Amino acid sequence: MGVFKDKGVVYKSVPDVDLGPHSDEFYRRANVKAPRMAGLLVKVFAWFLESRIFGAILLYILKKNNLIHKLVSFADLEESPVFVPLHPYEDLKEQEVNHIESDLSPPYQVQKAMECLQSESKMQNPNFDFYRWTIMDYSKAYTSGKITPRQVADQFVSAVRESSEPAFQMSFFIDYNVEDILRQATESTLRYERGEPLSALDGVPIAIKDEIDCLPYPTTGGTKWLHKARPCTDDACCVKRLRLCGAVLVGKTNMHELGAGTSGINPHYGATRNPYDPNKIAGGSSSGSAAVVSAGLCPVALGVDGGGSVRMPAALCGVVGLKPTFGRVPHSGVLPLNWTVGMVGILAGTVEDAFIVYAAVSGQSPSHQPTTVSWFNDCTDDIKACCSHALDQLHKHYGWETVAVTIPEIEVMRLAHYLTIGSECSTAIACHLEKLNMEELGWDARVALSVYGAFNSREYLNAQKVRNRQMQFHKIIFEKADVIVTPTTGVTAYSIYDDALKTGELDYINGAALVRYQIAGNFLGLPAVTVPVGYDKLGLPIGLQFIGRPWSEATLIHIAFAMQALCISDYKKPKVFYDLLKTDSS
Amino acid sequence: MGVFKDKGVVYKSVPDVDLGPHSDEFYRRANVKAPRMAGLLVKVFAWFLESRIFGAILLYILKKNNLIHKLVSFADLEESPVFVPLHPYEDLKEQEVNHIESDLSPPYQVQKAMECLQSESKMQNPNFDFYRWTIMDYSKAYTSGKITPRQVADQFVSAVRESSEPAFQMSFFIDYNVEDILRQATESTLRYERGEPLSALDGVPIAIKDEIDCLPYPTTGGTKWLHKARPCTDDACCVKRLRLCGAVLVGKTNMHELGAGTSGINPHYGATRNPYDPNKIAGGSSSGSAAVVSAGLCPVALGVDGGGSVRMPAALCGVVGLKPTFGRVPHSGVLPLNWTVGMVGILAGTVEDAFIVYAAVSGQSPSHQPTTVSWFNDCTDDIKACCSHALDQLHKHYGWETVAVTIPEIEVMRLAHYLTIGSECSTAIACHLEKLNMEELGWDARVALSVYGAFNSREYLNAQKVRNRQMQFHKIIFEKADVIVTPTTGVTAYSIYDDALKTGELDYINGAALVRYQIAGNFLGLPAVTVPVGYDKLGLPIGLQFIGRPWSEATLIHIAFAMQALCISDYKKPKVFYDLLKTDSS
Repeated sequence: MGVFKDKGVVYKSVPDVDLGPHSDEFYRRANVKAPRMAGLLVKVFAWFLESRIFGAILLYILKKNNLIHKLVSFADLEESPVFVPLHPYEDLKEQEVNHIESDLSPPYQVQKAMECLQSESKMQNPNFDFYRWTIMDYSKAYTSGKITPRQVADQFVSAVRESSEPAFQMSFFIDYNVEDILRQATESTLRYERGEPLSALDGVPIAIKDEIDCLPYPTTGGTKWLHKARPCTDDACCVKRLRLCGAVLVGKTNMHELGAGTSGINPHYGATRNPYDPNKIAGGSSSGSAAVVSAGLCPVALGVDGGGSVRMPAALCGVVGLKPTFGRVPHSGVLPLNWTVGMVGILAGTVEDAFIVYAAVSGQSPSHQPTTVSWFNDCTDDIKACCSHALDQLHKHYGWETVAVTIPEIEVMRLAHYLTIGSECSTAIACHLEKLNMEELGWDARVALSVYGAFNSREYLNAQKVRNRQMQFHKIIFEKADVIVTPTTGVTAYSIYDDALKTGELDYINGAALVRYQIAGNFLGLPAVTVPVGYDKLGLPIGLQFIGRPWSEATLIHIAFAMQALCISDYKKPKVFYDLLKTDSS
Repeated sequence: MGVFKDKGVVYKSVPDVDLGPHSDEFYRRANVKAPRMAGLLVKVFAWFLESRIFGAILLYILKKNNLIHKLVSFADLEESPVFVPLHPYEDLKEQEVNHIESDLSPPYQVQKAMECLQSESKMQNPNFDFYRWTIMDYSKAYTSGKITPRQVADQFVSAVRESSEPAFQMSFFIDYNVEDILRQATESTLRYERGEPLSALDGVPIAIKDEIDCLPYPTTGGTKWLHKARPCTDDACCVKRLRLCGAVLVGKTNMHELGAGTSGINPHYGATRNPYDPNKIAGGSSSGSAAVVSAGLCPVALGVDGGGSVRMPAALCGVVGLKPTFGRVPHSGVLPLNWTVGMVGILAGTVEDAFIVYAAVSGQSPSHQPTTVSWFNDCTDDIKACCSHALDQLHKHYGWETVAVTIPEIEVMRLAHYLTIGSECSTAIACHLEKLNMEELGWDARVALSVYGAFNSREYLNAQKVRNRQMQFHKIIFEKADVIVTPTTGVTAYSIYDDALKTGELDYINGAALVRYQIAGNFLGLPAVTVPVGYDKLGLPIGLQFIGRPWSEATLIHIAFAMQALCISDYKKPKVFYDLLKTDSS
């Protein structure tokens, strides 16, 4: 006690905080004090952090400079800690949701979702010819005999091989097993020949982030060692459900090592490159899942979102990213890298496809007219203009109102979330690390793990008090509005430099800009979806995010449909793109 | 990472642990490595702990020597953390419980409880003349006009004054306001004169632990400063409910400073003395509440139990102590010294009285025939003989079976609970401490707070994994049996030495012996009750504890009744005892 003498912030009582448009709560910009580092610099920094004495001093300075001490560690918070963002179902207005009972089989859930889509699709121009094949397109092509799952699988395999060649080095996958893919595709082809496909997903290629168990692959978590310490013995629950629908599971996508970063630059398996510009990052940590969907290799992929790890790469790669409410999809078979912020999420080329796969792994259908809440500062001008335009369109076409509110203490929430996911991740893998030769870890992951392990129980508990405050703030805001609309990221995909390829890169300033709008989804367990709404001056995708009430995925998907319908005719094809349904005749 | 090189235990999977009677799980005795300290030694120890460098080294050695590193900090646990021991209601077999609906008024709940008691009381010999007055006795005496609440209040005040004189120095209360007591008693007397008592509790003196808000008193938590930092502005919820029943709230009982110890030796307000032998401790932290009930000053008192703090002093002072399931009694108005282990509890002279007050502050009634589980090692021979005899009696009179089981990792659970309550307590009061002159704290509390603040987030999270394991173990055990029976404490009341009076005392060996059987109640949120079942060779009370399934207070109270009925005729009067219902004619 009394060892540290930094002064902490004394927070106001929640009822005393003005959440209205004229609030005097000021917006605290992220105060990230850390220069970009890569190459030798990262190594030296990691060595310092890992030394007992210098490390302790350096971490103290880092925590102090980055306002963790002031805003969290030594803060005076009257709330009790809330440890798990599990919202009671009874908060829901019943009429908002039309549950597909979750004890029904995944194929039946897919069928119900397809029926829902037929009523939603009247929003969209039926004559519009989209450059990207959807699940519906696959299903029709297979049923009509235009192409077989086996043919698609062949084209998939050659496309992945092409993308891995020195000229491309897209680094989409950590592992894919040609024999296993072709076996699944052949079985699917036989089912179509018998006229007995399992569901609309039968024969559709789906990729799985290498943080989710999927046989016959090991689950590396983007590392060189974790799969040895924790063998994969079964499919994860969400993967099992997709397999029951006949999906062809085409391999394990690349990811940021241990999910401990947002760039998707992995020193062991390569930097996943952005299909819109291979010199740019794909974002992370579900980098490969976003990039394979963007590049047309799969209509859908699964990711895991513990701090925007589905939505950020989705936005940067110009695809849809859906992170359901905390607890919606069973977590069994997902690497336990944290316990209170992560959730399986879906990356898809269209909202429709996200919805179908969401139905398969959980189960819901849409309704309800929303109002919206805007919150549009602190991002690049391109993003601001593009997102504002999208919101205006929503208002113009559907009459949805915008209500102005203030969300206080956003930067505090970012720090509290960082402290939480960091503490949980470092605890989760600590036992493995003790047996590990540190050389097996990437340098940026070593730095991240040093910082992750630097928090004490008071800091952890104070972060959970911040969680309680923010859950209260958001509850009040959701009494006034149905969704919170934000840019998905504060920057678009930034450049991959050569010095980052082997050591990884520390770029906490860009990292904070990427993650800025993600935190409520993870720390408060709220569902959120990102939809592509345009491009910056360089032609790089911009995503718009809708954050909903707990368990309101139905509403979110409905809004995302509406948004997509207004933008889809302007969607641009990525530079790196594969057309798997092309046949000699087409 | 990699700073500490101690090796941690690798725990087996829960399904691989044998919980049967022939299990090879060995019983690990508490490995407490800390000599008793008091006086100057405590001061020097506190100074060392509070110094930045020596403190860090000393804490490292303490954590290592006491097996915290091996069993918790660096342990390999495959479970997810469970942060809050809140059990779903649906685990209950419906027929076990006959809820008194909790939206009924407290006086109505008291009435229903009295009706339940009439059916239970057939267990007891109606001609037996108990030395102690019960709530029923008070109610009958007031209704018949034998004595008035005002007369009882006068006798209460003179008894408390007598107990405070130099010859006694019992240190029962931190504060009592004669004017406020007499005002309440006069109002109650008028209600009886009008024939309109509010409930059977009308006019009954009830004391409140100074950790619970009760107007007009400040809530000190046993400190000299906490009430200044956190003013008491309203009654706690449980106190409000008692007031609605007409109870006369007679003051704030003494407690171990901040609840951070088990002896009840408070350097600011005196060492609460045991009515069975004033040279012995009363136990803690609810020392005053147990002692006032034991000494006949109140039939009932409220305490708070975060680590046995109700049950231990109850056992040592020869009274009943009931700690309900976590979440049963609203926590509002209780000092937030922790968030996941504490619960308001009841100390009473008889099971009947504990039940009536329990009904007033929550609401339930008994049923169900139990089997029992024995677990009788590691306590003094007197306690073992006495508790075994009590269990034999239960079997002989009611035919309840004893099932042998193994509860593994008890010592790990004790450490994990200590780490949890310590981290939470130190976080809860950290902001106050930073503004505080350390001189205002007692020396043993300073030592406790130094250790409490020494844990990192990994240790906290690992402790919550241990919580998950133990919740699973206990769930399996409760499939085989209805209650777990243990001695309440491993030792009876030990001596108060003069050198401890000013500085407090560090006696972690006796502390661990006291707390040994308490932890499941707090860390796993299970309800538990202690009943006096006999005395050791020195005439000091011995308690038997029943630990029940979540939400099974009804079953527990039923068992406690049965146990009490077999023992009550042998109950001995304490040396310090006040007979408040005596009148000139009696």
